[in-house]
Amino acid sequence: MKKIAVLGSTGSIGCQTLEVIDSLGPEYRVAALTAGSNDSLLAEQIRHFQPEMAALSDTTAADRLRDNIKPYKCLLESGPEGHLTAATWPTADLIVMAQVGFSGFEPLVAALQHGKMIALANKESLVIGGEILMRQGLLDRESILPVDSEHSAIWQCLGASTSGNINRIYLTASGGPFFGKTREELEKVTPAMALKHPNWQMGNKITIDSATMMNKGLEVIEARWLFDLSLDQIEVIIHRQSIIHSMVEYIDGSILAQLGPPDMKLPIQYALTYPERRKSDFERYDPFGRILEFDRPDRDNFPCLELAFSAARTGGTMPAVLNGSNEAAVAAFIEGKISFTAIPLVIETVMRDHDVIIEPGVEDAVHADSWSRVRAAEVIDELTGRVS
Amino acid sequence: MKKIAVLGSTGSIGCQTLEVIDSLGPEYRVAALTAGSNDSLLAEQIRHFQPEMAALSDTTAADRLRDNIKPYKCLLESGPEGHLTAATWPTADLIVMAQVGFSGFEPLVAALQHGKMIALANKESLVIGGEILMRQGLLDRESILPVDSEHSAIWQCLGASTSGNINRIYLTASGGPFFGKTREELEKVTPAMALKHPNWQMGNKITIDSATMMNKGLEVIEARWLFDLSLDQIEVIIHRQSIIHSMVEYIDGSILAQLGPPDMKLPIQYALTYPERRKSDFERYDPFGRILEFDRPDRDNFPCLELAFSAARTGGTMPAVLNGSNEAAVAAFIEGKISFTAIPLVIETVMRDHDVIIEPGVEDAVHADSWSRVRAAEVIDELTGRVS
Repeated sequence: MKKIAVLGSTGSIGCQTLEVIDSLGPEYRVAALTAGSNDSLLAEQIRHFQPEMAALSDTTAADRLRDNIKPYKCLLESGPEGHLTAATWPTADLIVMAQVGFSGFEPLVAALQHGKMIALANKESLVIGGEILMRQGLLDRESILPVDSEHSAIWQCLGASTSGNINRIYLTASGGPFFGKTREELEKVTPAMALKHPNWQMGNKITIDSATMMNKGLEVIEARWLFDLSLDQIEVIIHRQSIIHSMVEYIDGSILAQLGPPDMKLPIQYALTYPERRKSDFERYDPFGRILEFDRPDRDNFPCLELAFSAARTGGTMPAVLNGSNEAAVAAFIEGKISFTAIPLVIETVMRDHDVIIEPGVEDAVHADSWSRVRAAEVIDELTGRVS
Repeated sequence: MKKIAVLGSTGSIGCQTLEVIDSLGPEYRVAALTAGSNDSLLAEQIRHFQPEMAALSDTTAADRLRDNIKPYKCLLESGPEGHLTAATWPTADLIVMAQVGFSGFEPLVAALQHGKMIALANKESLVIGGEILMRQGLLDRESILPVDSEHSAIWQCLGASTSGNINRIYLTASGGPFFGKTREELEKVTPAMALKHPNWQMGNKITIDSATMMNKGLEVIEARWLFDLSLDQIEVIIHRQSIIHSMVEYIDGSILAQLGPPDMKLPIQYALTYPERRKSDFERYDPFGRILEFDRPDRDNFPCLELAFSAARTGGTMPAVLNGSNEAAVAAFIEGKISFTAIPLVIETVMRDHDVIIEPGVEDAVHADSWSRVRAAEVIDELTGRVS
């Protein structure tokens, strides 16, 4: 039996993870569940999966939940520490990290320090902490199983191959809803327009990241750490159909690609059942009569991609600042405070103002994140002051 | 050091194998070389690679060669037995089987009986002998490394996975020079037209097989034995660009594909260096701005594909008869004796007239091959008699 902790269980990946666990049968059990503030959905999940512990970040929501789950033997924690408890839960064989943004960082560090096996959907934690974890010797492909469809694709293509055999990887990107749009068109983009992704059903934050191409930038940094690659070895390629989920070019020139319909359940299941594969009733890709196309990304109109490469080249605390300012800018865009094209402007300004700490520790990264949000708020205020 | 025997060294795959061996440096040595009748090219190869033994099927050509290679310590054999000697040569670590057609069958059996590791480019030998070798327990993926680009693709996609994890495979086919042509157009096809393949530079026999789609039919049977699949698990898919060389769909729905320019050197090198990959200067596939398309094969106008499936379903000696009658019909077409569309007619007639031996031995397959050629010659005579 495999016992699983699902952190961020009420989000898009969290819910799909629980669906997959359900479909895999009694061999797979839920040991722990955590969420932010959605106590009603978490209560349902606790009833269904009967985990040994659960946690909510929001203490008020946790109080409501406590009353609701009395009949179940489930330890309930509240506040951010609950996520650390779940990330290191003694009976859990696998920790699924499906939180959004920075909140995944400290639980990832804790889980790795406790020698846990991790299925990682929270790319931001590796963006922030990849360099730190590498220096601490906590990063290895055997303990972090990727859930992101692109990284799962590369992992599947690699099989038992080591990074020394890789010439380069192609990270595929759908291009999002605004591929091919001009700068003028991008300036008129509303949150409602940006929240409609052509191929993938995802949470709000990643959907906006996908529209700005920052999602691909974060994935470049994630891939770098997951697969021990230099930035020069990572190519971003537009593939509008989202069928090829990424490709590996080996040193002999052979390329392996992984294909499938855009459905996160497949990479989730692979991470859960690894090293095995299990039969599934997921939709199949039928290649007959189909076309697959590849294009270069538009780095001029989608500058977030270049900002991510730049932050990765600088290293130290800069990727944490890239991520923190992006989270702040995306939230401000969704709230209607800033325009779509202001997102990269905010990030660029905050990055320019940051005094990088080289060889940072976990606390340095946490401070850089906080600093970047404060500075981003100032930049956003300046921008909106100018606009209004 | 790895010592290699190259059977069929003066053919297209044989010559490319020697090029690859040359480029791999002194770790790779040639132990034995065999050819049919091209003594001048074999003499050059002997001078360059200084093998311990060599063989020519043609005894007159062998006599010429003997005078030519006196300065070299090279045992020379002539007649078909020379190929068996090379296939079981004691110092050879790997036997590259690059002969054309039936002539690969008995050397393959001999090499497997001697526990040799084989790099197989001669698909006909597995078409004829797959069932026999399986029944004798001589077929396993660890001792036969595929060289055919499609089978190498599947092998690379499989990694360490076993056949139990495979849902199906997609064998890609370029469709050859006549994809999309009508029956009327196919009737006017000349040998010169059929010998021009749009993507691959290959020997004459396989180029005609590619034009009739028999090549893909033979590959279906080869794949069945190499990867322990049922015929229902093998899909043939037209892919005009010849970039994806085949795909594996796993039981969870994930598909892995192998891509690269149409260049046999890559699968040849992978078979030689396996389980390692080596850096190469082969042309790289640049995916940017490219399109990959997939179509269904035209089974009505290219009946050879269905004949191969039918022979495979019947089993016993029928695949040997499929192959023997195809070799005879292709030779007759190249000589201008019969039309392009008569090739499947000859094969179908010979197959219909065959009394299948179930659970055959090696001798039964050899006899079925001889019988099918005699019967094909009669059918061809009848056809040309009718035509002229």
